[in-house]
Amino acid sequence: MKKTDNLKTMKDIHIGLIGFGTVGQGVVRVIDENRSILRDKLGCEIVVKRIAVRDVRKERDVRVGEGILTDNPMDVIEDPDISIVVELIGGITPARDFILRALERGKHVVTANKAVLSTHGREVFTLAGDRGLDVGFEASVGGGIPVIRALREGLVANRIDSIYGIINGTANYILSKMTNEGGKFEDVLRRAQEKGYAESDPSFDIEGTDTAHKLAILINIAFGTYVDTRDIYTEGITRITPLDIRFAREFGYRIKLLAIAKLVGDEIEARVHPTMIPESHPLAKVDGVFNAVHIRGNAVGPVMFYGLGAGMMPTASAVVSDLVDICRNQLKGVSSRLTPLSYTQEAIKDIKIKNIEDLDIPYYLRFLAIDKPGVLSRISGVLGAHNISISSVIQKGRKIGGAVPLVIVTHSALERELRQAIKEIEKLDVILDKIIYLRIEENLGAVN
Amino acid sequence: MKKTDNLKTMKDIHIGLIGFGTVGQGVVRVIDENRSILRDKLGCEIVVKRIAVRDVRKERDVRVGEGILTDNPMDVIEDPDISIVVELIGGITPARDFILRALERGKHVVTANKAVLSTHGREVFTLAGDRGLDVGFEASVGGGIPVIRALREGLVANRIDSIYGIINGTANYILSKMTNEGGKFEDVLRRAQEKGYAESDPSFDIEGTDTAHKLAILINIAFGTYVDTRDIYTEGITRITPLDIRFAREFGYRIKLLAIAKLVGDEIEARVHPTMIPESHPLAKVDGVFNAVHIRGNAVGPVMFYGLGAGMMPTASAVVSDLVDICRNQLKGVSSRLTPLSYTQEAIKDIKIKNIEDLDIPYYLRFLAIDKPGVLSRISGVLGAHNISISSVIQKGRKIGGAVPLVIVTHSALERELRQAIKEIEKLDVILDKIIYLRIEENLGAVN
Repeated sequence: MKKTDNLKTMKDIHIGLIGFGTVGQGVVRVIDENRSILRDKLGCEIVVKRIAVRDVRKERDVRVGEGILTDNPMDVIEDPDISIVVELIGGITPARDFILRALERGKHVVTANKAVLSTHGREVFTLAGDRGLDVGFEASVGGGIPVIRALREGLVANRIDSIYGIINGTANYILSKMTNEGGKFEDVLRRAQEKGYAESDPSFDIEGTDTAHKLAILINIAFGTYVDTRDIYTEGITRITPLDIRFAREFGYRIKLLAIAKLVGDEIEARVHPTMIPESHPLAKVDGVFNAVHIRGNAVGPVMFYGLGAGMMPTASAVVSDLVDICRNQLKGVSSRLTPLSYTQEAIKDIKIKNIEDLDIPYYLRFLAIDKPGVLSRISGVLGAHNISISSVIQKGRKIGGAVPLVIVTHSALERELRQAIKEIEKLDVILDKIIYLRIEENLGAVN
Repeated sequence: MKKTDNLKTMKDIHIGLIGFGTVGQGVVRVIDENRSILRDKLGCEIVVKRIAVRDVRKERDVRVGEGILTDNPMDVIEDPDISIVVELIGGITPARDFILRALERGKHVVTANKAVLSTHGREVFTLAGDRGLDVGFEASVGGGIPVIRALREGLVANRIDSIYGIINGTANYILSKMTNEGGKFEDVLRRAQEKGYAESDPSFDIEGTDTAHKLAILINIAFGTYVDTRDIYTEGITRITPLDIRFAREFGYRIKLLAIAKLVGDEIEARVHPTMIPESHPLAKVDGVFNAVHIRGNAVGPVMFYGLGAGMMPTASAVVSDLVDICRNQLKGVSSRLTPLSYTQEAIKDIKIKNIEDLDIPYYLRFLAIDKPGVLSRISGVLGAHNISISSVIQKGRKIGGAVPLVIVTHSALERELRQAIKEIEKLDVILDKIIYLRIEENLGAVN
């Protein structure tokens, strides 16, 4: 066989890492363990030349050669041999600064940093575009699942109509455990922490912040915009109880922490909250630490991508796929072949995010009501006055001091009206506790 | 914002189609309906300049402008304005010839043709490589699911350990209907034909041939080889009975027509056959016309891609994604940035395909045996003599003329031994009919 162009210009590609924690060590492992596969595909080697760490003397599972570690990130950013800087320290400060400095010095950047990209994406991507540099960020959403690549390339011919994602493994692990084995949120969280599936400070995961960051990135690619993460309504899973999980099952639902983006006219719904979804939907079966993103495009219809959303090796798989992508550009002497969001800079536009109060979907409501005649009629009276009609009711279970849990599933209703109705119902003397409400998604972009 | 390079050199990209059936019309629809999205991403237009059809006068749902249709494919292949030829007629002859001629004339090629690529992939891809041209074939496997792109790029950093695919919608529709609603194979097939989910001649789908073609393409990309499709053991679903589906459920399995590729040492298992899989595995829940491919990589772990594996618009979504990919290369003045198999031509190697008789997995066996003492002992005696041990047994159900169905699930056993044992057991006077056997996959690359 003849030699390809790649081999005629074969040379090694030098990269540098900033950060050498779990993912950074994973990246070195993947490059090392799959060296021959990468060589068979690229026709050259990826060489890790420098790694910036806080403490060069710290014991690490993955060893690297003499002189590779440095405690000065500028040794990576300013090394003339290094063409790609991989930022893996996470968080906004100082990661954002390192990314910008690397771009300013003409380096391509690969990062898993969803915090920086969701809040400073415009700054990073615009600088990269102006300098004609590539930014790879496959690892920022869904770990090893190539969902960013799918949105930027595989589904490029589609208008994206909806995205529903389970994109936080910790939250999904906790909800799955509560659903399949029972247990209160606090107890399951503690066990998850013991097993290393939840951080000692789990708030980013369980409050939905991490999910919202990732959703912002998906929205930006899907719709060609830079969403303000503060416009994404975000609600975590801390108030989910075993009782609600049980009632959900009775109605044929599962509760999942979903990242939701929907194109509605020329606005976008963008929200993160625990959601009741039909148990028959593919997302309902995504359990444990697994992630999945269900996307509906106007040509492709429904597609779903499933896999491990975190962890050393899955995340490293995504980082190295970005490295290979940029190497392939370098071997051909091009860059910016594909813009970060897949849209040209000129085409990026502001899109209005719908106010959560304008949401128009079905709801699950749980009341603790005194068990006496006329209660349901008073509740439904208030709901009716707010144009909220009832789809089904369950009233049963242990009486707690003469009170019973009463559960109502509504037809589609305006959230603004629902919130008002809840305020009014909570004032009724037959209602003994705060009303729990959860949003329901019935279709989630599946085939009608 | 500044203008990007793309816009400075903005010009329309002219393409030509050979074949204007369902998929071809879908391609024109996608390009037309999503014109503004494609422009926002590419910075230029994709213009369909010529379309070769057999009969230019035939009535079609999708209309095109005057002078675009021609009944001479060479009008497409030789048009100097056309840089990308899209082959969508299917089948080997004359499609292969058109693809090769287009490449010889320096045109990039996009095709959905799994028959050509699985049997003449080496010829097509080598010619493209020698000429420095791109071949896009995302639509050849899994319809709109970007699984080819995932293997070539998203999972590029992995050694692929296994692939399990449900990649024929017709076969999956029939098996799903039989499982969820009951009914004999022949009846369900007839209803599928009435609904347009099965061809009037369904043999390619139900005999597993189409699945084997697609598996060959996945194997070639995953492992960097050109497998001979004749080496892929291929068995269809025509002998699956409602009884076996019912027994499968009792053991906690579902029956799916799977495309299987496994890396075992330096050999590959490559086979297509109805397979019993645990009902808890994500593939077990892929029903109806949906396709899914479950891949395990040594870094990423298990990932699954799910969506519609056929149909006008999903397939067109994949074709146009390939067009965009090649356009992005053209706008940067490069080609062959990524080889068809993702491996350099030099790295492509021959890999031995394991003989099906060397398979070492568990089996399901169903006997129609006379209901009298000692039968099980005689059967297990023969199995034991072939080193086949029994994992579980079910003996029950209606007596059919004094005979009962007897079902055995074995531990892992060599298929060679199993086949020999079956021959011997069929000679026993207590056995009344041919023995049915099905292969079982227990793990399918899921997390251990």
